[in-house]
Amino acid sequence: MEPNLKKIAAEKAVEWVEDGMTIGLGTGSTAYWAILRIAERVREGLTVRAAASSIRSEQLAREHGIPLVSLDEIDRFDLTIDGADEADDRLNLIKGGGGALLREKVLAASSDRFVVIVDESKRVRTLGAFPLPVEIVPFGSRLTLNALKALDGNPAVRMDGDRPYVTDNGNWIADCRFGTIDDPEQLSVRLNRIPGVVENGLFVGMTSAVVVGTAGGAIVLE
Amino acid sequence: MEPNLKKIAAEKAVEWVEDGMTIGLGTGSTAYWAILRIAERVREGLTVRAAASSIRSEQLAREHGIPLVSLDEIDRFDLTIDGADEADDRLNLIKGGGGALLREKVLAASSDRFVVIVDESKRVRTLGAFPLPVEIVPFGSRLTLNALKALDGNPAVRMDGDRPYVTDNGNWIADCRFGTIDDPEQLSVRLNRIPGVVENGLFVGMTSAVVVGTAGGAIVLE
Repeated sequence: MEPNLKKIAAEKAVEWVEDGMTIGLGTGSTAYWAILRIAERVREGLTVRAAASSIRSEQLAREHGIPLVSLDEIDRFDLTIDGADEADDRLNLIKGGGGALLREKVLAASSDRFVVIVDESKRVRTLGAFPLPVEIVPFGSRLTLNALKALDGNPAVRMDGDRPYVTDNGNWIADCRFGTIDDPEQLSVRLNRIPGVVENGLFVGMTSAVVVGTAGGAIVLE
Repeated sequence: MEPNLKKIAAEKAVEWVEDGMTIGLGTGSTAYWAILRIAERVREGLTVRAAASSIRSEQLAREHGIPLVSLDEIDRFDLTIDGADEADDRLNLIKGGGGALLREKVLAASSDRFVVIVDESKRVRTLGAFPLPVEIVPFGSRLTLNALKALDGNPAVRMDGDRPYVTDNGNWIADCRFGTIDDPEQLSVRLNRIPGVVENGLFVGMTSAVVVGTAGGAIVLE
């Protein structure tokens, strides 16, 4: 049987969870394994409280007995564990393939430690092979897409059948192809300056550690 | 009778409207006079097409016979005319007291010329006496408000009775008091870096001219 690289990364990251912590739970197939492992530790006696970046992760956590609190009761997370679509060795990320980039970024920005878990296929030298999701407001979307084109982003509105996919926040996602992203910090600032852009999937300077699952075990980049 | 300073500024700005232009129409008590004056010129034979930053302005334009097009049909505005809550002599603005800052900014950013009309009470040496509106997503709003507090923004969620006021885009407005804003460009970038912030009311480097209505006539800053 192939080793489960996502599980290997997730279980390593969950070692950093300590008693009494407020934990942010991410979304996706790697975060799934982290949630299961945290639940296991809760059953063994760990005391934590958690909030999630999606309804799906919230439900998973609830089913497995992780105590949940509303985001309105939290001022700060001690630790958030989440996946990524791409991670480079400077700990910059592309996230949002699943469409939840805004909520994931709100959690990450409010966490003392933001730990990212990926299998080794997501580790890249330079970001940009994965399309960069950009959350945009539907109002004036043609103008916003023009602005993304002017930055050479080649945006394509993510569809759900024959209509635009709508995020949890009522917005749309423009999947952009900038090619190799040499300066993610600068691109992120430029994107967020476009008035119709709510947020973008570049996570720069937010990550404390990237845990990469490999067949030989977990590698920690920090 | 007191001279109508808003009307003086508006009518001066409308002199820049030319035949064949695509015009962006702003919102508020000063933009109101611009819309009426454009309508007058349309009745005199001017050919333009227009789109507005609010339903209210759209209705006003329609009632007065200004030809309207959908934002989905426009790639660029030749000229947008809008009011502001504060304008300094470097043409930086605070806008969004009316709650439409995001839509107003989308139009401004897509305009070859963005002309702002104010009465002289809105002209300031340095921005910041007027509360700065910041549009935020409801999800995780406590965390976003914490981030605004960390920037010394003293945010207060704008209310509509006992519930948060909801923008046209389904978001909330945090009215912030930063005190004197010495570097609007830097503050704007910092605000837009906060993941839960959709947009802020600082308009920096977007304005072509500010037309100030005074009892002695219109003064043009550009």
